[in-house]
Amino acid sequence: MASTFYAGEPEGPSLKTESIPGPKSTEHLTQLDKVFDTRSVNMLADYTKSFGNYIVDPDGNTLLDVYAQIASIPVGYNNPALIKAAQTPEMIQALVNRPALGNFPSHDWASILETGALKVAPKGCNQVFTAMAGSDANETAYKAAFMWRRQKERGGPTVEFTEQELNSSMNNQSPGASQLSIMSFKTAFHGRLFGSLSTTRSKPIHKLDIPAFDWPQATFPLLKYPLEEHVEENAKAEADSLAEVEDLIKNYHLPPCAVVVEPIQSEGGDNHASPAFFRGLREVTKKHGVLLIVDEVQTGVGATGKFWAHDHWDLPSPPDMVTFSKKAQTAGYYFGNPELRPNKPYRQFNTWMGDPARALIYRAIIDEIERLNLVEHTAKVGDYLYGKLEALAAKYPGEFANLRGKGLGTFIAFDNPKRDQFLAKAKKFGVNIGGSGVSAVRLRPMLIFEKQHADILLKTLEKIVTSW
Amino acid sequence: MASTFYAGEPEGPSLKTESIPGPKSTEHLTQLDKVFDTRSVNMLADYTKSFGNYIVDPDGNTLLDVYAQIASIPVGYNNPALIKAAQTPEMIQALVNRPALGNFPSHDWASILETGALKVAPKGCNQVFTAMAGSDANETAYKAAFMWRRQKERGGPTVEFTEQELNSSMNNQSPGASQLSIMSFKTAFHGRLFGSLSTTRSKPIHKLDIPAFDWPQATFPLLKYPLEEHVEENAKAEADSLAEVEDLIKNYHLPPCAVVVEPIQSEGGDNHASPAFFRGLREVTKKHGVLLIVDEVQTGVGATGKFWAHDHWDLPSPPDMVTFSKKAQTAGYYFGNPELRPNKPYRQFNTWMGDPARALIYRAIIDEIERLNLVEHTAKVGDYLYGKLEALAAKYPGEFANLRGKGLGTFIAFDNPKRDQFLAKAKKFGVNIGGSGVSAVRLRPMLIFEKQHADILLKTLEKIVTSW
Repeated sequence: MASTFYAGEPEGPSLKTESIPGPKSTEHLTQLDKVFDTRSVNMLADYTKSFGNYIVDPDGNTLLDVYAQIASIPVGYNNPALIKAAQTPEMIQALVNRPALGNFPSHDWASILETGALKVAPKGCNQVFTAMAGSDANETAYKAAFMWRRQKERGGPTVEFTEQELNSSMNNQSPGASQLSIMSFKTAFHGRLFGSLSTTRSKPIHKLDIPAFDWPQATFPLLKYPLEEHVEENAKAEADSLAEVEDLIKNYHLPPCAVVVEPIQSEGGDNHASPAFFRGLREVTKKHGVLLIVDEVQTGVGATGKFWAHDHWDLPSPPDMVTFSKKAQTAGYYFGNPELRPNKPYRQFNTWMGDPARALIYRAIIDEIERLNLVEHTAKVGDYLYGKLEALAAKYPGEFANLRGKGLGTFIAFDNPKRDQFLAKAKKFGVNIGGSGVSAVRLRPMLIFEKQHADILLKTLEKIVTSW
Repeated sequence: MASTFYAGEPEGPSLKTESIPGPKSTEHLTQLDKVFDTRSVNMLADYTKSFGNYIVDPDGNTLLDVYAQIASIPVGYNNPALIKAAQTPEMIQALVNRPALGNFPSHDWASILETGALKVAPKGCNQVFTAMAGSDANETAYKAAFMWRRQKERGGPTVEFTEQELNSSMNNQSPGASQLSIMSFKTAFHGRLFGSLSTTRSKPIHKLDIPAFDWPQATFPLLKYPLEEHVEENAKAEADSLAEVEDLIKNYHLPPCAVVVEPIQSEGGDNHASPAFFRGLREVTKKHGVLLIVDEVQTGVGATGKFWAHDHWDLPSPPDMVTFSKKAQTAGYYFGNPELRPNKPYRQFNTWMGDPARALIYRAIIDEIERLNLVEHTAKVGDYLYGKLEALAAKYPGEFANLRGKGLGTFIAFDNPKRDQFLAKAKKFGVNIGGSGVSAVRLRPMLIFEKQHADILLKTLEKIVTSW
């Protein structure tokens, strides 16, 4: 059965060529490789033919897509509501008259934000700084943290910079260039530009040869599964991690002004921690006057069965900043505390500061999520899928190891000892799945993923593990 | 007289309110400030009413715009050809099915690049890495430089990383995190994220409180004007600068793997150096196996009367990488040497790697530039404008000091001792002009700026300096 949300979705996967890439894809890839590195290409797509949960390639192969452009397509390929938004006069304006948003915002920029991005702002956040992608969303949040902390140390927003600060900043030296740090966690991923990469600790291939700041990292709990069999051990891992965070805050040679954390470490292997851990993290950061930045680039916008993954935590006080990208199709950071606006203009600034065209798409996505109640829907479908995966895990021991993501919508993962072959087989059987970390199979369906799609996925997963 | 390129442009500026912002703008700004920092707002715009060279605000004030969204609008507001491009099925596809370009490029991505960005690739460059804005264009170019250099030091692309490199990279330590640097110039601007900001040396307000890499900076020549009266002095400044570059290459404690330079330092105050200087820079970098990255973010795409400003230099061998953004309305870096593709996939990678929607706009801009021959046109209009400015400078000594940009299209600047008041008066008289550095008035008209617009601008400039 195809999508109940949109008519016209394929009934199921269908493969036309022996293998992917087929002859037409190969031809396009050969042409592309002359001008653009293609070694990381997973498969070529014909987006004119892709629809809903299905991605179609130039050879006509039709795959159920539970990877969704690295977790970044929220409401399906060629979503009719998005197509409508793409054809509005507002969109044409945004495309052809790209403003420098900090200098010359359009008269309706406030309204675009209020009816879009800010409508879904996390609790405690009523302001936004708009950016382009996950990396610069995180980096501008880091910059806000550094300025906030130094301003406090300086004695408030009205205290002027010293001559020494002004001059040393131009030489990249302290005190103008601060000797502070951002703390992140081992196996975290926060982006790949120089500041964000310094907080990324997932894989050497991301980091090799690139200079990095000497910033601290704490151990992420890395829970053991099944959870109910490792209650004490896991609680200890979380307590140890929090103690390490506190120790680094107090003693690290470059004092951290913020801790950045993913609700679920995604690129690093779908590593989870409990809500209690995150409440503890909020407490320990608050206690020491350190900001908490929650990186919701991959977890945000509904996939965990709540709009923001940190909504699952019942925090005593909100995060100081929440970064977003991917399923928002644009990026930035939310915040509430007015002190996080730097004390002078042009301290947090760049030419474009985001893209109104993508802000309009985000707004259309939000409308579509609300109209179809997709967050609640995803919570339900996720519960169904998780239950069935538990049964598979019991039936095929070792093949769906460390199943995780219970109660977190469709944001589900498991480990397989032959992960890379697992993903290759999945493609051969008509399902596009992604991996993360060393051995995780990460499921990242869209928010329009339904029970009938889950059934196709489950059948395929079983087919894979019985085909070894 | 209005535009000869497009019918319907206003005949000239017209002001409806006593001052800007008028009442309607103020209302919008008050609303916007609740959710978005407005302290850097220059003026609010109504882009639905702006056309060609004219920006219109919500109160109906119509200004000749020679700032053009910080030098980033190439072919006019509401350009009919761009509106057409914004309405194509390809554009709708690009907006609603945003791909992860490194993993799942569309079948026509090669063709979009070949008929777009690569059609205007600088000499010696036949490949492109696509990015989002100037900062990440530069930073990904820097990353390519670090990987290239370490690969050479390691003994080539097939030499594997050592265990020590793999492990230390995860701790942000050497040798995995390299102890190399990027050299830039004093008063340069290359962006505001952590790596690019470490090479930016224009103003403390951009850098204060943000940690920076301890990278080297050489003195930019800072020519004296009029050039013909300072021939020897300027030649010496350039020779000294090149000697300093060579000394830093040989002796700086973190060896530079690349030098990044703007053809004209824009944000830093419109500082020029001669073609001979840049040829010397190419020679000295080549001699020492250091890459030359030319940052054409502000100078590229026609404004200097050539498509790329470095086309003015007659280089003995091309730059290794050329970065672009702004008037391209998208961003990235061009390169030619296949060794600049890192030895393994996923070393230079991120989720989106640019935006096909913006790549389509760049293609439409290129078509429009070619159709109307706008680069040659800009060279001619620039010569006309420069000549008239020379006359004004002679007539009003001190008011148009250090006039610069002769033979460089409309990329013209001068210094005024009361620069900020100068810009405020310009707006009052109906012209939107930007500043740069401490005292520069920088002219950044669009490529569709014509003789008749130059005449309006010139009349206004004279009005300003006779109104003190």
